[in-house]
Amino acid sequence: MHIDVQFFPFPPSPHLLSDRTVVVIDILRATSVMVYAMSQGAKEIIPVKTVEEAFQLAKTFPRSTTLLGGEKESNRIEGFDLENSPREYTSERVEGKRLILTTTNGTRAFHAVSSAAEILVGSFFNVTATAQRCLEGERDLLLFPSGDEGGFSLEDAVCGGMLIDRIIKRVKKPVALTDTSHSAHILFQRFEANLVEAFYLSRHGKELVDRGHGDDLPYCAQVDIINLVPVFKEGVIK
Amino acid sequence: MHIDVQFFPFPPSPHLLSDRTVVVIDILRATSVMVYAMSQGAKEIIPVKTVEEAFQLAKTFPRSTTLLGGEKESNRIEGFDLENSPREYTSERVEGKRLILTTTNGTRAFHAVSSAAEILVGSFFNVTATAQRCLEGERDLLLFPSGDEGGFSLEDAVCGGMLIDRIIKRVKKPVALTDTSHSAHILFQRFEANLVEAFYLSRHGKELVDRGHGDDLPYCAQVDIINLVPVFKEGVIK
Repeated sequence: MHIDVQFFPFPPSPHLLSDRTVVVIDILRATSVMVYAMSQGAKEIIPVKTVEEAFQLAKTFPRSTTLLGGEKESNRIEGFDLENSPREYTSERVEGKRLILTTTNGTRAFHAVSSAAEILVGSFFNVTATAQRCLEGERDLLLFPSGDEGGFSLEDAVCGGMLIDRIIKRVKKPVALTDTSHSAHILFQRFEANLVEAFYLSRHGKELVDRGHGDDLPYCAQVDIINLVPVFKEGVIK
Repeated sequence: MHIDVQFFPFPPSPHLLSDRTVVVIDILRATSVMVYAMSQGAKEIIPVKTVEEAFQLAKTFPRSTTLLGGEKESNRIEGFDLENSPREYTSERVEGKRLILTTTNGTRAFHAVSSAAEILVGSFFNVTATAQRCLEGERDLLLFPSGDEGGFSLEDAVCGGMLIDRIIKRVKKPVALTDTSHSAHILFQRFEANLVEAFYLSRHGKELVDRGHGDDLPYCAQVDIINLVPVFKEGVIK
């Protein structure tokens, strides 16, 4: 098994995707929101790239069963039902609902890797379940941190490293790591005893604190509180 | 002081360069060769992007005082005087000579950052001297690992991390680190006791071993054996 991590959120070459499982990771906060919302009974999540696209798409569904969620530059979007904090996506609000979600980095990442053999939604919430699913798939892996506005994101790399750690401790066959996957694993080991420390060092973590979303940092650092792995297929997460 | 590391060797935005000192790092092996050759008395080094450019440029200088050096895909170049191992660039061969150098990654990097306020040549050989020079310059820093064929290179990131470590232990004012510079520093700390271990894990390090250049790995891992910092200016390293 070969595990690579793409440190920067550029669309990978299609030849890198066609026979691989891709895990999209956006800890602060898109994939944390997605995993949490699905665990609370959301019916499905449609990630879209822009606010305009979200409003357009919402018109095609019954309003009573559809919620608009997300953020733009870490801020609330006028006319949306929910922001981008997983804590908002409780069963009372999302159970049985279709969510249309748009965020700065995370929702774009799914479209960048849409030609992969399988696309999973990863986070600290479901890291062991995701590792298990990767092992069952038996494909080579590309971990795809959605990054920070086109750049490298420390907290996403640390989560990728934790996923690698879970996999190499369980896998029966040899695992080949690349320069980036070795590095992500080392970054995880550095923060293993205190994951949220990485969030407070990261640019995006600091920005969330500055904008009053500081409570989301320890919340999104919770490990293995959810035992499901949402899958992105044909534009929809289920 | 603000220290950033560009993990991928894409040309940075000009606005990131104009008031910064950039340190180009290509441990295996271009900047190691450059620093070593200058320490052995080479007169100057002209990094060029292609083999053809090297041959064309050589015609404009007296052959007796000019040497062609470098590699293409880690292999010897027909008609060149020297390959890309620092061990070849001894004073007997290079003293007083102009070197025209072309390599897969390292020489291109200088052209990618040519609009920076100051461009230094970094390596493990001269890491403390480079840190001292950065401190004297008092500019914000961009460390620019030349990477591995367009990708992230573990050994370059570790050297960037060591340079950061040297700077933050000496600097008098606060230093702001980014997600990438925190990560490079952590990667350095992981390999601090055994730098060459990082080289043996890296894709490019393994490739050099496979192609019979394995002796260059421990050689290029030598720290602070040289107390000079070559500068790239107007196309020439002096």
